[in-house]
Amino acid sequence: MRNFDYKNPTKILFGKGEIAKLKTEIPEGSKVLMLYGGGSIKKNGIYDQVQKALAGFDCVEFGGIPPNPEYAVLMDALKVIKEENIDYLLAVGGGSVIDGTKFLSSAALYEGDEPWEILDKKIPTLKGMPFGTVLTLPATGSEMNSGAVITRADIKEKRVMGGSGLFPQFSILDPSVVASIPERQIANGLADAYTHVMEQYMTFPIEANLQDRFAESIMQTLIEVAPKIMKDPSNYTDAANFMWSCTMALNGLIQKGVPTDWAIHMMGHELTALYGIDHARTLAIIAGPHYKYSFEKKKEKLAQYAERVWDIREGSVENKAHAGIQKTIDFFHSIGIKTQLSEYTTDFEGTSAEVAKRLKEKGMIALGEHGAITPADAEKIVEMSY
Amino acid sequence: MRNFDYKNPTKILFGKGEIAKLKTEIPEGSKVLMLYGGGSIKKNGIYDQVQKALAGFDCVEFGGIPPNPEYAVLMDALKVIKEENIDYLLAVGGGSVIDGTKFLSSAALYEGDEPWEILDKKIPTLKGMPFGTVLTLPATGSEMNSGAVITRADIKEKRVMGGSGLFPQFSILDPSVVASIPERQIANGLADAYTHVMEQYMTFPIEANLQDRFAESIMQTLIEVAPKIMKDPSNYTDAANFMWSCTMALNGLIQKGVPTDWAIHMMGHELTALYGIDHARTLAIIAGPHYKYSFEKKKEKLAQYAERVWDIREGSVENKAHAGIQKTIDFFHSIGIKTQLSEYTTDFEGTSAEVAKRLKEKGMIALGEHGAITPADAEKIVEMSY
Repeated sequence: MRNFDYKNPTKILFGKGEIAKLKTEIPEGSKVLMLYGGGSIKKNGIYDQVQKALAGFDCVEFGGIPPNPEYAVLMDALKVIKEENIDYLLAVGGGSVIDGTKFLSSAALYEGDEPWEILDKKIPTLKGMPFGTVLTLPATGSEMNSGAVITRADIKEKRVMGGSGLFPQFSILDPSVVASIPERQIANGLADAYTHVMEQYMTFPIEANLQDRFAESIMQTLIEVAPKIMKDPSNYTDAANFMWSCTMALNGLIQKGVPTDWAIHMMGHELTALYGIDHARTLAIIAGPHYKYSFEKKKEKLAQYAERVWDIREGSVENKAHAGIQKTIDFFHSIGIKTQLSEYTTDFEGTSAEVAKRLKEKGMIALGEHGAITPADAEKIVEMSY
Repeated sequence: MRNFDYKNPTKILFGKGEIAKLKTEIPEGSKVLMLYGGGSIKKNGIYDQVQKALAGFDCVEFGGIPPNPEYAVLMDALKVIKEENIDYLLAVGGGSVIDGTKFLSSAALYEGDEPWEILDKKIPTLKGMPFGTVLTLPATGSEMNSGAVITRADIKEKRVMGGSGLFPQFSILDPSVVASIPERQIANGLADAYTHVMEQYMTFPIEANLQDRFAESIMQTLIEVAPKIMKDPSNYTDAANFMWSCTMALNGLIQKGVPTDWAIHMMGHELTALYGIDHARTLAIIAGPHYKYSFEKKKEKLAQYAERVWDIREGSVENKAHAGIQKTIDFFHSIGIKTQLSEYTTDFEGTSAEVAKRLKEKGMIALGEHGAITPADAEKIVEMSY
């Protein structure tokens, strides 16, 4: 096991009816900016619940944060923060709204002229404007971590940011919200959380036994709950298991003391930037080819995964490992997610070279747990995904 | 799944050499009281490592905190805190030293005349004197939770205390310390952590799938590591898995959203108070009888445990459940822990009635996840443990 630091100060309020507790979690007298996305919260009742809980606060709203939170839109929100002297942010949404709010938390206190520098120069945020979240879409885990991914359309870029100052002060997770999430988004949430776990697990054995078992636990729970929640998102128990699994998949715990990969995400981000494919679906496109390409380096862990998560007890390490990859692809298919790039775009020729070029330009020349995936490797992996 | 709040702000620094980071974790200019136990840290090099890291601080020492931290001794330490104007506490030890430090953290800021009131009147500590820990004995999980158990010899009492103000600010977990722990203490740590998990798991099914799997993961890891760490405590990898499992067993995570039992602890505490039997061993004495006595109410969970943790796949729910109990008892025996009261004392006649009387006097008349274990039930359970 490797040395690690672990601290996660976010307070989770989990369960039915918890949104009402907003009023005691936000400091009295705060001037609040409530941020949200496309407005679905106005149809499913969440907006009304939040408004009711915020009755005692001076509160301004900013809606319209798009999926893959867009820098230009966020810069408009930043203007509102400054003009209205906002001192507390409340994200009501999924990963995109929460990530956008994290950017604003950082940008609001940033002393330079151009907040893009936070992303471009990879400046860690040690102190941000305080914020909380009301999660409306289980998927990214952003509600209990300190990272964010921001998109800039004009230069087709997706960049990551983070820092110890970017943990939400609190996050309210009410599984009732799952009932109104469209099937496509639920599938995305399942695939996103599942891939988050794989990126932190499918590397090489390092005898971090508890971290391995926790990762396997999250995958097993997602596998169990997937067919049920896809069929009936209004089942509260299933929604609760789905929601808590997504949070635990990327709140930092399972990555402590172990090597992590994240190459799938880095390649996937490029597919979203190039074609606008849903983030989770880009992960499903890349995962299979990535594991096949890196088979020799990952086969021990793939075999352990096949054995423990999929109960494949027979066969050699290689046989089990191959079966594990196939089970993963089958899992994505079982929730209606296609795993080949050509199923998303007809314009796929040349994508692999383009992805390789973009990774190289960003200096991402050593991806994966060994730092051994070069842009040339990425090119081959993306080509295998056609 | 039940509604829950979860927040754990303790920073963990895990791994070889981390003790040196003390100097950056304690705020500059602090006047530190370093607390420790019987002095084993002077033999195994931990004392020297801590002293070296504290070189820049004004630091006072207080050694001699006994196992089952004794109120009278802690009151002496409290005097030192006041006389020396201490403003930061550092526990260097196992659960007893850390629990004692938590009491001091609370008592140092307590405004009443008699700090025993904190325990006697169950006053939650919302703000304590800040403190950190250097863990020398994996077992109780106290290094990452906000609870403590304090003993008062003159009235043969063991009382619990806690509150959101009692999380350590940081805890340093260096698995290297395990190498010098006596076999008896390692066995105690394994049994203690294992029982902590069982108390939060062995109740009734509530479809909190991830919490169940996390609990099972910790038990599986402890079972895997137990024979290895008993044989060779100097194996760093095994020590790391042992240490992290003990912390995760009682840092609050696995109890969120689920019913918990804790009847084993309540009965076990009385055995320690009456006979001075090691805390962990009292748990091993009570666990088997408790599960046999409450078999009908716990059999579904016992069967799930037998299946997933011990890979018992054949037989009825009842058969599996019985096998699960036996496997638990066998596990304690495998690490050299006896499970019958008569193996610890010849003076056991009348113990069951005495335990029942003491529980009744304290108002502990409704123990367990159903609040259905009365003192009369406890009497029968303790009698089964003879």
